[in-house]
Amino acid sequence: MFFWFRFDRDLRWRTGVQLLPVHSDSSNNFKITVAAMEEAYNNAAAENIRVKGVLITNPSNPLGTILDRETLIDLVTFVNSKNIHLVCDEIYAATVFTQPDFVSVAEVIDEIECNTALIHIVYSLSKDLGLPGFRVGIVYSYNDAVMNCARKMSSFGLVSTQTQRLVAGLLSDDEFVNRYIFESADRLALRHQQFTSGLAQVGIGCLESNSGLFLWMDLHKMLKDQTFESEMELWRVIVNEVKLNVSPGQSFHSAEPGWFRVCFANMDDEVMEVALRRIRTFVAKSAQADLAAKKRRSWQNKLNKLSFKSRILDDVAMSPGSPMPHSPMLRAQN
Amino acid sequence: MFFWFRFDRDLRWRTGVQLLPVHSDSSNNFKITVAAMEEAYNNAAAENIRVKGVLITNPSNPLGTILDRETLIDLVTFVNSKNIHLVCDEIYAATVFTQPDFVSVAEVIDEIECNTALIHIVYSLSKDLGLPGFRVGIVYSYNDAVMNCARKMSSFGLVSTQTQRLVAGLLSDDEFVNRYIFESADRLALRHQQFTSGLAQVGIGCLESNSGLFLWMDLHKMLKDQTFESEMELWRVIVNEVKLNVSPGQSFHSAEPGWFRVCFANMDDEVMEVALRRIRTFVAKSAQADLAAKKRRSWQNKLNKLSFKSRILDDVAMSPGSPMPHSPMLRAQN
Repeated sequence: MFFWFRFDRDLRWRTGVQLLPVHSDSSNNFKITVAAMEEAYNNAAAENIRVKGVLITNPSNPLGTILDRETLIDLVTFVNSKNIHLVCDEIYAATVFTQPDFVSVAEVIDEIECNTALIHIVYSLSKDLGLPGFRVGIVYSYNDAVMNCARKMSSFGLVSTQTQRLVAGLLSDDEFVNRYIFESADRLALRHQQFTSGLAQVGIGCLESNSGLFLWMDLHKMLKDQTFESEMELWRVIVNEVKLNVSPGQSFHSAEPGWFRVCFANMDDEVMEVALRRIRTFVAKSAQADLAAKKRRSWQNKLNKLSFKSRILDDVAMSPGSPMPHSPMLRAQN
Repeated sequence: MFFWFRFDRDLRWRTGVQLLPVHSDSSNNFKITVAAMEEAYNNAAAENIRVKGVLITNPSNPLGTILDRETLIDLVTFVNSKNIHLVCDEIYAATVFTQPDFVSVAEVIDEIECNTALIHIVYSLSKDLGLPGFRVGIVYSYNDAVMNCARKMSSFGLVSTQTQRLVAGLLSDDEFVNRYIFESADRLALRHQQFTSGLAQVGIGCLESNSGLFLWMDLHKMLKDQTFESEMELWRVIVNEVKLNVSPGQSFHSAEPGWFRVCFANMDDEVMEVALRRIRTFVAKSAQADLAAKKRRSWQNKLNKLSFKSRILDDVAMSPGSPMPHSPMLRAQN
């Protein structure tokens, strides 16, 4: 079973395991519900697919939200009732930058009755400490069979001694780690605020979030139709013309078209400003184009034989009065 | 199928694969013969074991010898005729310190007709460059299925970026690498000569070798009986009393008792001298003890009722005139 995120490559492609998304949408802020889990489970059973476990990211990728204690209890209770596994990817645990605080599934299973052998936590230094290249990952499982297997496989993925030395030194320095995590959270909070208010200026909303290195941006009003084809069409325009690489919701198996994941953390302030400006320009341009198209349709009704329709969009985008700034975009493209 | 070396942990324990040794012995300097391979193959078949491949180390661990071109051709021809795989561990390729030169299986399959999809080479920087902690290993396979699988698994064992950077810099420096390999070979040759001649002083022979970081030492004359029980007994004495950690042949599935692998390269000159002195002392002491035991048996025949027999060995070992040097051994033990 599968919620969001691009586990496709890591799991499906490597192992042949099937990943089934659990439905969630904006009506309840993309919360995971027991009803949706039961539905996904029953749908799988109806197709003779044996569900072996639930896989979540907490904080969520791509949502940037944390799972509250109640949802975690629901998840643990659900996997217990089905006797299936719960794999919690807590790789963004220390990116929570505003209240409420992060709750690990490890805390929840201390508080409720549960077969802990069904619970597995994965973690890494790549996000919280910004060290993806160090290739330091952690499996924390309450299951002896999993640990025995991991022990047998571990020597094929050992962390090199020089990396171990550096990481050991770094993690032993409590003061540094604490300062780093706090400073990182402060900067994430600031950047998040800058980005969401920059988007709000042109009427773009985002899912309210308090963690992660990304935003879940709502562009559904810009879709021609409320379909994933239109989402893909919009994505192509954003990549090819706006020159921004945001991820369309469907790549995370979103059930609702029009949402895009925007990474806001892995860039400096100048690049962020360029990106924000591009998005705002694009939205404003689209609004103008919409207006122009409406006018055009109205004119076409009146002047049915005149043929200047295809020039209007170009005119809007390329005119000297266009709000689309050319040079900084080209510069930042490289 | 399996020749020497402690692949037990790496393969049998992890995967459940069975490893079957191929018989070789001192009568032809432990050479791999087609007859022995056919015999092992047929024995496996008789036990309903489906042989999937042959696994060799070239240069050999624990022998310190290289496989000559003819043996490599035999191996490639053998796996071709059975349509099974040949995995060549060439991890000691650059430790060859005297003639003849190393020949890789990669050269042989260029020269003879062969289904290359059956051939796989593994390598690492751990031995040739003395960088085991860097965890940099290489699979060089001519088989697309193997490469596809390796590609799918590789991200679980990626070399960390800082290690990649260091290794890339190191390997790009041809002059350094060449000097390193030559200097290493020179030092291995010198150490090998010192060690074998040191052993020869007390009549200990070794298999003639020209590579690797170890010697294949012949102590069969010191066995009480020519059995693996006696080999284990001798090994215990060497570990507990001589305080040297050599590996008994049976841990490499040796078919002939009395051989021990001695690592001679991973120590400084002083430690090597201590180790050599201990071995020589031990052999000399054993010879004296043998003599004493013979005398004792002769006296016992004559003076059957006198009871000083148990003190003789102690007297020989601990007397001021004993050739056994106490302090350096104790010092080096730490």
